[in-house]
Amino acid sequence: MNIEKSRIAIHNDVLLATHQRSFDYIAGEVENAGDIVNKLAAFQVAIPSWALGTGGTRFGRFPGGGEPRCLEEKITDIGLLHQLNQSSGAISLHIPWDIPSDPSHIKALAAQYGLRFDAMNSNTFQDQPGQVFSYKFGSLQHVNKDIRKQAIAHNIEVIRHGIALGSDALTVWLADGSCFPGQLNFRQAFQHTLESLQEIYAALPDDWKIFVEYKAAEPNFYSTTVGDWGQSLLYTSKLGPKAFTLVDLGHHLPNANIEQIVSLLLMEGKLGGFHFNDSKYGDDDLTVGSIKPYQLFLIFNELVEGMDAKGMNHATGLGWMIDASHNVKDPLEDLLQSIEAIMITYAQALLVDRKKLAEAQQNNDVVTAQEVLQHAFRTDVRALVAAARLQAGGALQPLALYRTEKVREQLIHERGMKTVATGL
Amino acid sequence: MNIEKSRIAIHNDVLLATHQRSFDYIAGEVENAGDIVNKLAAFQVAIPSWALGTGGTRFGRFPGGGEPRCLEEKITDIGLLHQLNQSSGAISLHIPWDIPSDPSHIKALAAQYGLRFDAMNSNTFQDQPGQVFSYKFGSLQHVNKDIRKQAIAHNIEVIRHGIALGSDALTVWLADGSCFPGQLNFRQAFQHTLESLQEIYAALPDDWKIFVEYKAAEPNFYSTTVGDWGQSLLYTSKLGPKAFTLVDLGHHLPNANIEQIVSLLLMEGKLGGFHFNDSKYGDDDLTVGSIKPYQLFLIFNELVEGMDAKGMNHATGLGWMIDASHNVKDPLEDLLQSIEAIMITYAQALLVDRKKLAEAQQNNDVVTAQEVLQHAFRTDVRALVAAARLQAGGALQPLALYRTEKVREQLIHERGMKTVATGL
Amino acid sequence: MNIEKSRIAIHNDVLLATHQRSFDYIAGEVENAGDIVNKLAAFQVAIPSWALGTGGTRFGRFPGGGEPRCLEEKITDIGLLHQLNQSSGAISLHIPWDIPSDPSHIKALAAQYGLRFDAMNSNTFQDQPGQVFSYKFGSLQHVNKDIRKQAIAHNIEVIRHGIALGSDALTVWLADGSCFPGQLNFRQAFQHTLESLQEIYAALPDDWKIFVEYKAAEPNFYSTTVGDWGQSLLYTSKLGPKAFTLVDLGHHLPNANIEQIVSLLLMEGKLGGFHFNDSKYGDDDLTVGSIKPYQLFLIFNELVEGMDAKGMNHATGLGWMIDASHNVKDPLEDLLQSIEAIMITYAQALLVDRKKLAEAQQNNDVVTAQEVLQHAFRTDVRALVAAARLQAGGALQPLALYRTEKVREQLIHERGMKTVATGL
Amino acid sequence: MNIEKSRIAIHNDVLLATHQRSFDYIAGEVENAGDIVNKLAAFQVAIPSWALGTGGTRFGRFPGGGEPRCLEEKITDIGLLHQLNQSSGAISLHIPWDIPSDPSHIKALAAQYGLRFDAMNSNTFQDQPGQVFSYKFGSLQHVNKDIRKQAIAHNIEVIRHGIALGSDALTVWLADGSCFPGQLNFRQAFQHTLESLQEIYAALPDDWKIFVEYKAAEPNFYSTTVGDWGQSLLYTSKLGPKAFTLVDLGHHLPNANIEQIVSLLLMEGKLGGFHFNDSKYGDDDLTVGSIKPYQLFLIFNELVEGMDAKGMNHATGLGWMIDASHNVKDPLEDLLQSIEAIMITYAQALLVDRKKLAEAQQNNDVVTAQEVLQHAFRTDVRALVAAARLQAGGALQPLALYRTEKVREQLIHERGMKTVATGL
Repeated sequence: MNIEKSRIAIHNDVLLATHQRSFDYIAGEVENAGDIVNKLAAFQVAIPSWALGTGGTRFGRFPGGGEPRCLEEKITDIGLLHQLNQSSGAISLHIPWDIPSDPSHIKALAAQYGLRFDAMNSNTFQDQPGQVFSYKFGSLQHVNKDIRKQAIAHNIEVIRHGIALGSDALTVWLADGSCFPGQLNFRQAFQHTLESLQEIYAALPDDWKIFVEYKAAEPNFYSTTVGDWGQSLLYTSKLGPKAFTLVDLGHHLPNANIEQIVSLLLMEGKLGGFHFNDSKYGDDDLTVGSIKPYQLFLIFNELVEGMDAKGMNHATGLGWMIDASHNVKDPLEDLLQSIEAIMITYAQALLVDRKKLAEAQQNNDVVTAQEVLQHAFRTDVRALVAAARLQAGGALQPLALYRTEKVREQLIHERGMKTVATGL
Repeated sequence: MNIEKSRIAIHNDVLLATHQRSFDYIAGEVENAGDIVNKLAAFQVAIPSWALGTGGTRFGRFPGGGEPRCLEEKITDIGLLHQLNQSSGAISLHIPWDIPSDPSHIKALAAQYGLRFDAMNSNTFQDQPGQVFSYKFGSLQHVNKDIRKQAIAHNIEVIRHGIALGSDALTVWLADGSCFPGQLNFRQAFQHTLESLQEIYAALPDDWKIFVEYKAAEPNFYSTTVGDWGQSLLYTSKLGPKAFTLVDLGHHLPNANIEQIVSLLLMEGKLGGFHFNDSKYGDDDLTVGSIKPYQLFLIFNELVEGMDAKGMNHATGLGWMIDASHNVKDPLEDLLQSIEAIMITYAQALLVDRKKLAEAQQNNDVVTAQEVLQHAFRTDVRALVAAARLQAGGALQPLALYRTEKVREQLIHERGMKTVATGL
Repeated sequence: MNIEKSRIAIHNDVLLATHQRSFDYIAGEVENAGDIVNKLAAFQVAIPSWALGTGGTRFGRFPGGGEPRCLEEKITDIGLLHQLNQSSGAISLHIPWDIPSDPSHIKALAAQYGLRFDAMNSNTFQDQPGQVFSYKFGSLQHVNKDIRKQAIAHNIEVIRHGIALGSDALTVWLADGSCFPGQLNFRQAFQHTLESLQEIYAALPDDWKIFVEYKAAEPNFYSTTVGDWGQSLLYTSKLGPKAFTLVDLGHHLPNANIEQIVSLLLMEGKLGGFHFNDSKYGDDDLTVGSIKPYQLFLIFNELVEGMDAKGMNHATGLGWMIDASHNVKDPLEDLLQSIEAIMITYAQALLVDRKKLAEAQQNNDVVTAQEVLQHAFRTDVRALVAAARLQAGGALQPLALYRTEKVREQLIHERGMKTVATGL
Repeated sequence: MNIEKSRIAIHNDVLLATHQRSFDYIAGEVENAGDIVNKLAAFQVAIPSWALGTGGTRFGRFPGGGEPRCLEEKITDIGLLHQLNQSSGAISLHIPWDIPSDPSHIKALAAQYGLRFDAMNSNTFQDQPGQVFSYKFGSLQHVNKDIRKQAIAHNIEVIRHGIALGSDALTVWLADGSCFPGQLNFRQAFQHTLESLQEIYAALPDDWKIFVEYKAAEPNFYSTTVGDWGQSLLYTSKLGPKAFTLVDLGHHLPNANIEQIVSLLLMEGKLGGFHFNDSKYGDDDLTVGSIKPYQLFLIFNELVEGMDAKGMNHATGLGWMIDASHNVKDPLEDLLQSIEAIMITYAQALLVDRKKLAEAQQNNDVVTAQEVLQHAFRTDVRALVAAARLQAGGALQPLALYRTEKVREQLIHERGMKTVATGL
């Protein structure tokens, strides 16, 4: 399924006058509207291949219809998102859920939609049919060297798939850990994991990065062997210059100050990328910006400031990915909302008056520092985001067009009601 | 100290054109701008008498200068806030920190500033000089009946003070609880507290309300005898129709869904009022809206919807109070920021398209329900809030005017650098 | 599979001398050893039918072998546990996972193992094959009356199954709630749920109870429609005298004081029963007592004190059930550990010197109150628990015997390696 | 005040038979009773000079009587504790609360009681009378270099005091951080703090250590500049081999796995020492072991295992200190309870069958691993702890003797009812 360019054009024509009124207003309020619009247009967020189907919990899963049945259909879905918002120009593949049997075909298909392959994801948190050893008690941390070897080999295989597709990064999210006190010797688990990562690191092409993700809990409920940013940083520091820490917003203990973590990882040159989502209780994997939008803004505020201080390119300096699960929404609509939230927040962070903020900080003028941030956050930047989409050939209101075009209905018609995409 | 009306007028004149541009824009975006402005103008938030000085923690306190040295100066400070924003037209007194020796004089002074006396606050969490019994082990819960009687008598005295000032509500925040397992018999503590509250309730004038505040922890670190909304509701249900639960945003366990609590208390007809503040870790008593502005919006969304459903007047149906502590900001600036955050959030809640939201809920259209709320929250309503102030005779930008008028400098000049206001 | 009595006898003979030494020591330390042993022997904890297989998370499931393939085998498994510890004399069935096609046969089979049927559990958090309406957006709360009716009918059917089996209680755990702000009108969801519960209540036999369980989050990640004890108490108070609140230890927000909740629910006459488990992060469903054993002790301390105050029989006054999930342990071993932890904790709670504790509380002697509790908790009561088992015909060391008898190996031999029990 | 040795002897004589019965029992149960008793006797926990008076919260403070009025009296109090339990043979001084005007006199006085001076504590979280610059906005992190210099100089002065007293470590707990988003540039705050610490480090004698403590929140409520173990490790790694991380049990986010942190810091050779206390909600500073005794056991389990793996001496390898606050208990009684909890837990950790645990871990036998830990924790080791005290000349039941000797009454008689010790 595909949305014809003419449909987007018609949609935009209808909305143009209203949009222009809003844009003119905000362009008159901010100094650098054109610059912001350009930066927004350049900013692309990768869609994970597992986020295109309905997600579930241990208690159940309520699939919708028209879910992609194969990698090709997943690429089609992401292509569709990208047509609409021109901000989803990358795909983050998960192996073995989405092994490309014919990589050059897949690569060409993606290119057709303007998509590139972002970080590849390995999976050693599930057992696959035919697998020799089980990951029940861990993978890279396992007490049994043979099982570690199996997990290392899988990661190296994922790198190989990635090379074939033009990716340049491997994300390692380890579920490894323990459910009960005493189950693990923490030091030994760390050392095993480090050695395993070192072997994977050795297989990394020169221009590749490895992202070591951390998570406080789940699926292990007592300890996680890469449990927080401090542990991830220990690993990535010991691994070498191609190793970076990846931050997933939902992987922290309650009340954690994530923006400070982001700032310090940038300072250390060890921030690699992001998994965007939102949460209220744990790793709830909700739509980005749906629960704590101001926290997201504070994180983007640190990203913009910290990347600028290092001269990093916002669009390419870090890996930007969504990692959400959609239990009660149409996955594509959910992703459109997530991307919109990210673009709005990035725009707000670009609005922050850095000079005034730095002065306020220098004077311990806490009130003004707050005013500066809140001014940016309270500004309605949606017209800037829409302008960036318009400029890039996307739709002024992607979600509205998605609905009026009856995309889901068509996907159900094409694929059926009972399809189930691979993933969580 | 007083800001002359002419100074406000000059300030507004200078900013008027810019304001008008913003107002015209937003008035063109929303259907009911005039109605919203009127509602905003009617909405008043009480300032607690203890919030006018620099707050502290158990580790220290770093006072600023020019803090009010007596009740008269506190009223002056609140009057000043009200002059600036026309939204702080009430004062919430704390006894014994602010016993009015001459109530009619105090009442007249307040009236001069357009201030009325909101809920009175008793204090049985500290020992006062000359007090017969100590509250070290609780007050209304105490195992010793004489101590309970002393605490009851104090509350009744607070009611008496309130009557003299024209107040019509008593807020009981009980620090009662325990620091260690075994310290209390929970049931006995509950029963003692209930009996004590019943005696206070009996002393309540017919047109008065009693607000029973709850708090999860601090200053007691193991249990609190009015620890959550469920416990407060048990007390207020047993007490009778004049008893209501008071919600303080910082008094919950991590991740609590406060907006749902608010909705259910309204449903039960037992929500009495609010203590506004914000927090990241515990009862941090930070500036309203400085940490989780979307949570504040969701709470106001429930308030508007729930009060409308019951036909309650937004401005007078519940008690609206700030309860914040300012450790690193000028208290008056902090209060201006808090009030601004409340007004912005109330305005956004008024913007919610209730019909569309109800339809989305009826259709389980979660995506649209989110869009409706986010649309309201993402709208920049500051010009509406400013218009309400302008209409009521306040300043377009209260904080800016406060600074250009050098209010704090003048207060320091008048009162000195080393003053310390009573309070926390 | 069955453990012959003679095997238990041999096991006990070997260990008897060692046990006797320990028992003699502890019997000399505590005043009422015989009484405690009798109470322990009378105390039975129901095993849920879904806890006999390996549990999982949304990320995966790593089954062991020999899991029960049908209700008969589940009863066999529980019978086996009961043979070993003589404390697992009840089964809590889950419908539709374990519909008894021939209730009288099932009842007879259970009786053969000395098992009775404790509370029945309904399931409206999953869709079953052939089900007309989906519970994707809730069941008893649903905006669609037909869906509520379907869920009500299911609960009434569960009652009917329970009657046939001799059960006398229905546990309603509702996953109902919302994942996003705006998804639900909280009041409407409450009212719908209340009305649905009232219809179920009306179908309850006179001597039955209904337990309304609460849970803070999961599988819904923004709100739960029976979210905390306060909400459950609202429902059960409105329902009537046969309705009670059920406490599951893992269903609270971080840092909640569960023992105080237990005490207050007992005070109100509205505590119905327990789901035992343990957790560190969320509803981790770990082995009872494996993470916070002192919290479990404090809860039992309140139970013993509160039930004694009301003259309730410890063994029969409340519903005692385990609700755990075993991801990395043999389920039967896990259950043996859970029961052992419960019995140890109950024994410690029985040891508490109530008179001394009450005196310390009356004198605000916090130090002594702590000493009294810690003395009980620090006492090694395992010999008392073992004595109760011995007296009842169980094994001195159930777990050790389970292993030496190679029970799991036999179950695998009988049932195969690849069986998967119904459940989570 | 002093307890005569003869009083202790009489106390012990009376209790000896009962003790001997318990000791004989437990000595028959464990393999290495004598060895454990010796290790317990060697283990000393430092008492902080600020913990001898009643603590408070921001809401109030309810002093008891007989609090020490000067450093000499504080040393007397600790001497008294040490007489009773022979496990409190060190004092941790706080500057400027306890500046020794005559160090050699103070040193001699301490020696008289068998006390040595453990880590010195600096204070840059409060302003002292006559201080040039305020720490309102931080100290070592401050944007103003002059203020950083003042804070550095203070720390160097504390080292000087420590040298005079024979201490060999400096504990730096920094309250530095921010209360609001935007207040700080996180990277700049980190860099300033690092540079300041480097200057302090340079002033450290060769045989000294510096402990960098971390804390998640309070008194700053948005960010802390040494906020978690990862941040502390960044500082101590950059500082050099004399710098170590200090763990305070109450300084973590909810649900943190502190034992894993301890294990990894030991692995990195960067664990310096401990501040023992307990908590339910935040940094509650409650009596050690009063809320989560099993967590304390799991921490000691890692300490014993990790220190043994590195060949570290348990008694001297790390700094052991209490950091508690006593709001509702006699401070000396509270400290006796804390020390008792530490000794019990250390004894239990020594009981862990390391060989069996390592085997279980190697086999992923999670059930047995749990059994091994729980067996140690469930063992009643109080007789071992008492035996260690007896052997060292202390009292079999320190708290009981403290009460029968009416120590507090005598202290009140000597010092008066209204004394207030310096500290929190």
